[in-house]
Amino acid sequence: MRVLGVDPGLTRCGVGVVEGVAGRPLTMIGVGVVRTPPDAELGHRLVVIERGIEEWLDTHRPEFVAVERVFSQHNVRTVMGTAQASAVAMLCASRRGIPVALHTPSEVKAAVTGSGRADKDQVGAMVTRLLRLDAPPKPADAADALALAICHIWRAPAQNRLQQAVAAHRTLKGRTA
Amino acid sequence: MRVLGVDPGLTRCGVGVVEGVAGRPLTMIGVGVVRTPPDAELGHRLVVIERGIEEWLDTHRPEFVAVERVFSQHNVRTVMGTAQASAVAMLCASRRGIPVALHTPSEVKAAVTGSGRADKDQVGAMVTRLLRLDAPPKPADAADALALAICHIWRAPAQNRLQQAVAAHRTLKGRTA
Repeated sequence: MRVLGVDPGLTRCGVGVVEGVAGRPLTMIGVGVVRTPPDAELGHRLVVIERGIEEWLDTHRPEFVAVERVFSQHNVRTVMGTAQASAVAMLCASRRGIPVALHTPSEVKAAVTGSGRADKDQVGAMVTRLLRLDAPPKPADAADALALAICHIWRAPAQNRLQQAVAAHRTLKGRTA
Repeated sequence: MRVLGVDPGLTRCGVGVVEGVAGRPLTMIGVGVVRTPPDAELGHRLVVIERGIEEWLDTHRPEFVAVERVFSQHNVRTVMGTAQASAVAMLCASRRGIPVALHTPSEVKAAVTGSGRADKDQVGAMVTRLLRLDAPPKPADAADALALAICHIWRAPAQNRLQQAVAAHRTLKGRTA
């Protein structure tokens, strides 16, 4: 199973591709960050994110896209940007019929560290260990994207199969409509 | 000047096209609502909104797109959806090099009724009068989209020309890059 994890953000959008199945060692296929200029207009920044995500989908052909579920209890300005960046990522995936899964930050932390309240360093350390990397991926957004992908591979394999079937059915309907 | 106004929402996205210049009678070119099924997956809903907005852009070829600026002081769940729907609208416009303007709800109300605290009925009544319609457009999201377009035509014509130049320059750069 190949999963693209996306840690959405307007300035830095973390992206990471992980391959594997639950219970077996996982492999990192790629990791990076899609950046947009903070002084550019919002619409333009969303276009840059779209191009970046499309490139990652084209290059790595993931079967699932896992995006961090955005909550609005944090900083209001940041949250709006995060919601907008995540919308672009979800749009790119759904347009291709790739199932999108949302995982909360605490689900992701719990999946990779065993604790939903783990800090950035702990998440980075576990991602490094689980993917057998030489050093934690930088910046933290990139490590978080890999953690999202790992979380998705480990959670709900049955749910994934169901989602894939629904998405395939929908794409088919869309084509024949 | 032809403007597409978008009142973003996941369930109902109001769209309205108005043509005219400040100080002259305005003309409604079209009005409608892009709807998405509330029980569908988020990614799929965003794809439906994208298709809807693309159709409006294709049909009416607006020179500007005016989108309601989303604030997060209201209901948290609704606001996230609104932010995501607005991201899709901005993305569709910016991808084509069409300048996007954001106006706050009170700017829009003040522009069409003279008061930033006007209610829905007042906005609907003024939109009906200004566009010389027989009845207020229904639902309120459609009337709000027209109000956004009117607001944009009346506010800052100089700013519009500047934005258009910047967008043209950017599209050019994107093509030659």
